Amino acid sequence: MARIVLKFGGTSVADLDRIRNVAARVAAEARAGHQIAVVVSAMSGVTNQLVGWCQALSPLHDAREYDAVVATGEQVTAGLLAIALQELGVEARSWQGWQLPIRTDTAHGKARIQSIEGGEIVRRMQAGQVAVVTGFQGIAEDHRITTLGRGGSDTSAVALAAALKAERCDIYTDVDGVYTTDPRIVPKARKLARIAYEEMLELASVGAKVLQTRSVELAMNERVRVRVLSSFTEAPASDDAGTLVVDEDEIVEKEIVAGIAYSRDEAKITVRRVPDRPGIAAAIFGALAAENVNVDMIVQNISDDSTTDMTFTVGRADLARTQAVLGSAQPQIGYRDLAIDADVAKISVVGVGMRSHAGVASTMFRTLADKAINIQVISTSEIKVSVLIAAEYTELAVRALHTAYGLDAA
Amino acid sequence: MARIVLKFGGTSVADLDRIRNVAARVAAEARAGHQIAVVVSAMSGVTNQLVGWCQALSPLHDAREYDAVVATGEQVTAGLLAIALQELGVEARSWQGWQLPIRTDTAHGKARIQSIEGGEIVRRMQAGQVAVVTGFQGIAEDHRITTLGRGGSDTSAVALAAALKAERCDIYTDVDGVYTTDPRIVPKARKLARIAYEEMLELASVGAKVLQTRSVELAMNERVRVRVLSSFTEAPASDDAGTLVVDEDEIVEKEIVAGIAYSRDEAKITVRRVPDRPGIAAAIFGALAAENVNVDMIVQNISDDSTTDMTFTVGRADLARTQAVLGSAQPQIGYRDLAIDADVAKISVVGVGMRSHAGVASTMFRTLADKAINIQVISTSEIKVSVLIAAEYTELAVRALHTAYGLDAA
Repeated sequence: MARIVLKFGGTSVADLDRIRNVAARVAAEARAGHQIAVVVSAMSGVTNQLVGWCQALSPLHDAREYDAVVATGEQVTAGLLAIALQELGVEARSWQGWQLPIRTDTAHGKARIQSIEGGEIVRRMQAGQVAVVTGFQGIAEDHRITTLGRGGSDTSAVALAAALKAERCDIYTDVDGVYTTDPRIVPKARKLARIAYEEMLELASVGAKVLQTRSVELAMNERVRVRVLSSFTEAPASDDAGTLVVDEDEIVEKEIVAGIAYSRDEAKITVRRVPDRPGIAAAIFGALAAENVNVDMIVQNISDDSTTDMTFTVGRADLARTQAVLGSAQPQIGYRDLAIDADVAKISVVGVGMRSHAGVASTMFRTLADKAINIQVISTSEIKVSVLIAAEYTELAVRALHTAYGLDAA
Repeated sequence: MARIVLKFGGTSVADLDRIRNVAARVAAEARAGHQIAVVVSAMSGVTNQLVGWCQALSPLHDAREYDAVVATGEQVTAGLLAIALQELGVEARSWQGWQLPIRTDTAHGKARIQSIEGGEIVRRMQAGQVAVVTGFQGIAEDHRITTLGRGGSDTSAVALAAALKAERCDIYTDVDGVYTTDPRIVPKARKLARIAYEEMLELASVGAKVLQTRSVELAMNERVRVRVLSSFTEAPASDDAGTLVVDEDEIVEKEIVAGIAYSRDEAKITVRRVPDRPGIAAAIFGALAAENVNVDMIVQNISDDSTTDMTFTVGRADLARTQAVLGSAQPQIGYRDLAIDADVAKISVVGVGMRSHAGVASTMFRTLADKAINIQVISTSEIKVSVLIAAEYTELAVRALHTAYGLDAA
């Protein structure tokens, strides 16, 4: 007997049959004795169509009107799911963001949740009613509907779980949990039973997109236990289904490395022969920040003469903009030329166990050296070591590291 | 410089191009110096799809959830139209029923508007902002969205015009006004410049569907001047475009007969050889009322013996149910048999001028007699005379009456 928030994304509610399936799953959880609130996304494709209409009418459309239009997607799903639940004999009602209310700031189109009034649905859940809540949206103090930005339904679900003091927030997706690495590259990848918030954040930011980053940050801040599991597991879900994203204190047997992530969305830029004097890094990265280019890894090579080479990575989508910014800043910076390499991959090993274990980085470097893989850039954080390598070695590196850290399934 | 409510139905906003056209029309009215509020329906087809989904999930779905789902159609149109208006440089914002609010009773799926809070949009209209309001919906005291039932957007527009004390409510449709009769039958039918509320109600109830009946009743009660006009007239609309539906006091040159209506949706039932004693009519029509069968025209023929024949009409769609009800009530009523004729048409002449003119009915009877058309049933009201005839004479009768009452265009 627990209070649980269940979240279903767009593909899980893509048509009436899938909505019926979701209803059956929710009904099974409710009949298992749990107090249930459900957060739903729009039927898949619907949001894109609504966004497309707004853009077609005006490329620079009013974000407040955009929100009013786009928020209808979840409104439809919530009502339909409530009807499907009632048809199964489960007492249920839909709640739109403004009805609870879910209060957000006024940043229309990318609003942040400020508070959720959960008292009424807690009372109803205690009386056996399932609350079906529209994800992705709320109401701002201007009394208008806001949306949280794409993928915001994960965040809605976590925020609702926090407001309801739910025992867990179950996020249903098309994968059955978080893996030690991409199973398409490493067939021996293992599903993790538990993963720490910080690990999940690092894995997400390096390309293992299972949960929206903001939802994980929120879960970490609010100490909401999040479970990622597949819409195709049996219902009600068994206790060991999926992967639980929790505080690291809840992970008794910590692995030193939880997972290996990779990203091919990076590009490497080397600014060559920069005068080696104070303020040069500020000049380069200040210019990029002013154009909203996110810089990731940075290394500076000291050279013999009075110049230095500055190497860093940006998202590949930002490469052209980066070149333009640096090109026009050349007179101020005074570098000789730029070397560009978009054919790179970032490989990261992530694990909270690293904090208390030495030798994680050296294992990585030795493993890659054994495979004759050259490391171009290194960056480290408390729970992550990342290296930049030539893209063609991606799979080889991931497989070798997965084995080296003892992650292969038996 | 007037305050006007404009209403656009589903076909007028069926796609982005038509929404742009509506925006251009609204912009023209706004630039002519008027204060404008617009009421919109859902894009055509959308409401049917949403209704279909609800029915597919549960034939006896919760009307409150149905309302939450179906109301999204207008929400999308209102937001898109606001965006399209802004793109034309017209300041505009969308308003959902719950935002104004438009308060209704709690009869979900067929709610009635109780009050509209128009203060805020009046202030904004005075400042030059166009209000785009979702038709067909409101909010009940249970804090949930309600819908008014099909065609309810006309009613929303009239109610909004009353709340805003608007000079006029312009209902844009696919016809350019109200005609003296169906122009497909009588090419010489004339568009009426003005028609009285009561006439409009009688014409609507006998098949000349231009405005939803409830919206006309509301307009009559609230003294809202309604104009019916085509979405294809020039913008801004000239003063003599369309047909104005007004209080009869505003019609200086009253025609005795405003129009000729016909309906082929009737069926005639004769209950033969009923005992001629008190309570028999109550027994027959009470049984039908209990089954929600609407009975229209009724005549009772006195016969020689102690029995009578009771003839009446019902909607053709109700014919089977009527036969079933009367069949099972035969022991109580004690009639001999039923004679059914579904091949009938009701022809009505309507006009407020009838109140002060004798001879309207006799002109009708003589005209039909001259064409050898047999009258089966007659019913009259203060401003209407209706007759039931064999369906095959419909066009002949309508044409002859149109000429007889001097309605033919020059």
